[in-house]
Amino acid sequence: MAAVTNFTYSASPFLVRCCSMKENHHEQLNGNSSIRMNGSFRSPIKVESLSQTAEAAPTTLVENGQRQNIPTKKQLVDSHRQGLIVGVGYRQTVVIRSYEVGPDKTATLESILNLLQETALNHVWMSGLLSDGFGATHGMMKNDLIWVVSRMQVLIDYYPIWGEVLEIDTWVGASGKNGMRRDWLIRSQATGQIFARATSTWVMMNRKTRRLSKMPEEVREELAPWFISNQAIKEDAPEKIVKLNKEAKYTNSNLKPKRSDLDMNQHVNNVKYLRWMLETIPDQILESHQLSGIILEYRKECGSSDIVESLCEPEEDEIVVNGIIEPDYCTNLINGLSLASSDIINGGGVLSYLEHRPMKYTHLLQAKGEKQNEEIVRGKTTWKRKFTTCPFST
Amino acid sequence: MAAVTNFTYSASPFLVRCCSMKENHHEQLNGNSSIRMNGSFRSPIKVESLSQTAEAAPTTLVENGQRQNIPTKKQLVDSHRQGLIVGVGYRQTVVIRSYEVGPDKTATLESILNLLQETALNHVWMSGLLSDGFGATHGMMKNDLIWVVSRMQVLIDYYPIWGEVLEIDTWVGASGKNGMRRDWLIRSQATGQIFARATSTWVMMNRKTRRLSKMPEEVREELAPWFISNQAIKEDAPEKIVKLNKEAKYTNSNLKPKRSDLDMNQHVNNVKYLRWMLETIPDQILESHQLSGIILEYRKECGSSDIVESLCEPEEDEIVVNGIIEPDYCTNLINGLSLASSDIINGGGVLSYLEHRPMKYTHLLQAKGEKQNEEIVRGKTTWKRKFTTCPFST
Repeated sequence: MAAVTNFTYSASPFLVRCCSMKENHHEQLNGNSSIRMNGSFRSPIKVESLSQTAEAAPTTLVENGQRQNIPTKKQLVDSHRQGLIVGVGYRQTVVIRSYEVGPDKTATLESILNLLQETALNHVWMSGLLSDGFGATHGMMKNDLIWVVSRMQVLIDYYPIWGEVLEIDTWVGASGKNGMRRDWLIRSQATGQIFARATSTWVMMNRKTRRLSKMPEEVREELAPWFISNQAIKEDAPEKIVKLNKEAKYTNSNLKPKRSDLDMNQHVNNVKYLRWMLETIPDQILESHQLSGIILEYRKECGSSDIVESLCEPEEDEIVVNGIIEPDYCTNLINGLSLASSDIINGGGVLSYLEHRPMKYTHLLQAKGEKQNEEIVRGKTTWKRKFTTCPFST
Repeated sequence: MAAVTNFTYSASPFLVRCCSMKENHHEQLNGNSSIRMNGSFRSPIKVESLSQTAEAAPTTLVENGQRQNIPTKKQLVDSHRQGLIVGVGYRQTVVIRSYEVGPDKTATLESILNLLQETALNHVWMSGLLSDGFGATHGMMKNDLIWVVSRMQVLIDYYPIWGEVLEIDTWVGASGKNGMRRDWLIRSQATGQIFARATSTWVMMNRKTRRLSKMPEEVREELAPWFISNQAIKEDAPEKIVKLNKEAKYTNSNLKPKRSDLDMNQHVNNVKYLRWMLETIPDQILESHQLSGIILEYRKECGSSDIVESLCEPEEDEIVVNGIIEPDYCTNLINGLSLASSDIINGGGVLSYLEHRPMKYTHLLQAKGEKQNEEIVRGKTTWKRKFTTCPFST
């Protein structure tokens, strides 16, 4: 078995620094270690193996008799998930499925967020650290600590289409003294082109007191060997998101989570947050634009009994909606050239600039309280005009 | 390249008859033909291949410059999707992902339906018949025909858990003179145990006139070589589903599809139908029971502007809800032994019978019309008590 060490990605400008594994991975490699990555395995299919279904890999039963299918032992490759540990990061090949795309046949943002969650959890278990379903390490379990995501940012240049084969890389790094950063890169398996980048920050919370916790030394020792400093998204200072109030331009009230919106954690899942946020955005924008960036700042878990309000405010008023420009804004823009860059003048002109500049919205989901409302998530979304031509052919 | 012919599944009591391929599959095999099935490939990972990302399999650009990632040429194996043609059927290995499970960590019915759709479409393109995104064959395209599903039935014995590796088989057969049946088996990859079975019937519709069509001879010639007679679910006569009216016990009105509920076809997707149906069922039942069977009879497509009503009626009144039995029913049952089988008397008694017998609900989704309502889907769901012990340890 060859060790996976010291290689770099040829296709990615955001290199994952693939240092040697700090620990010996040879001892616990799963026997089923064949994996097909990057289209370079070309051995013929072994037909005779197909009749051996019943003999292969018996279902693991843990002591209490329950089926246990998330391995807890470190593993370098996982052929079923088409994933492998590269250096201290994790790479998984996925295909966009028919039900993961929307009416335009490109992957929905929801599907992309789901894949980020999936690869993160797979990274944790492949690294041998997973002690429960939510990514907690053994040391965290011992200290009654759980992970809480505090911030998430996703930038999407191209939405993968139905049937497209993707490679998703994910890795972790330190965030301040007590936090962790997790980053992702999604790229075309065929061309290496980067489609999307994402970063998130995580802190630890005591499961019982629900208070944030420092990172215990024991946990730091578990995690630190996996930390690298590379960042999928370079940010000097994280963008601040203002808190909206009831003056917000768009509001959806009285939103109630349903049973099918709850995740393993009994909390409302991320996808539902996203739907609540995006449903406030005017239909014309959703039709002519696609989301190119989203930042989520998590404030409080949303439980199944919360009644939620979704607020949304355009960063500046929507000036161009389907090509119609509000006259006031246009005049202001032309008069006040501080707003315009030389590109506006030299390029397609003011109209073209207005049509193609990204639109931004600020969002807030809040739970209605008896005395006051409680913030669940603040968000910011950026939207750009949909491509009408192939991004590769220009 | 070995041909895939004449083998049978050792693990499945519902054998797919794997006759030889009627057509020559050798000519169009994709070069990337390595696949790992059933845990029996154990070749070491080729690390050196990992740096070749950019060189592998260039993105296919079709004439109009769009990326095209659903192959149209026949293929025997698809390593990315972990799928292959076996005889005239298709088998795909999938892992239940973290976001595909509900609060109880088992796959949701929605996820299962999604996987059925995915494997069906993959089967069609692997067989070389796919001409568009919805499973239409080349002959169908030529004749302006599309597939319309008229009925779907799913029986679920065990819900796969998070991380479980599944094998999904799907194949097609004739249904009457002009229809097609598509069946599925879902089983544990580790033990071969069957978790779920499904069957569906499809008819052809003229895309322009929206009228049902006979199967043209040209299309029959395309499809017939792929037909086998095996059935995943044996039924003498399909169960009839009565049409509910506004007297139904449970009703949810004023349901509106959202943008995110639309599929590639611009119609409300199956998952949304399901949610609308299941949300009418009382919470106590959803907590104590799990769905073991569902039949859907499709009547009309639901468009984005429809306003929908979801009706639901228990087959007989819910007699046992969380262990509390309605006294009248209990008395009636004991007095009228025609209702009871000898098992009731010999086994755990009346109480046990009542607690463990499946519950059934009839459903109707209808679109509100100006003059009259239009049926979208009729449904029937069957529910059994949740397992508290491992199904394998008894």
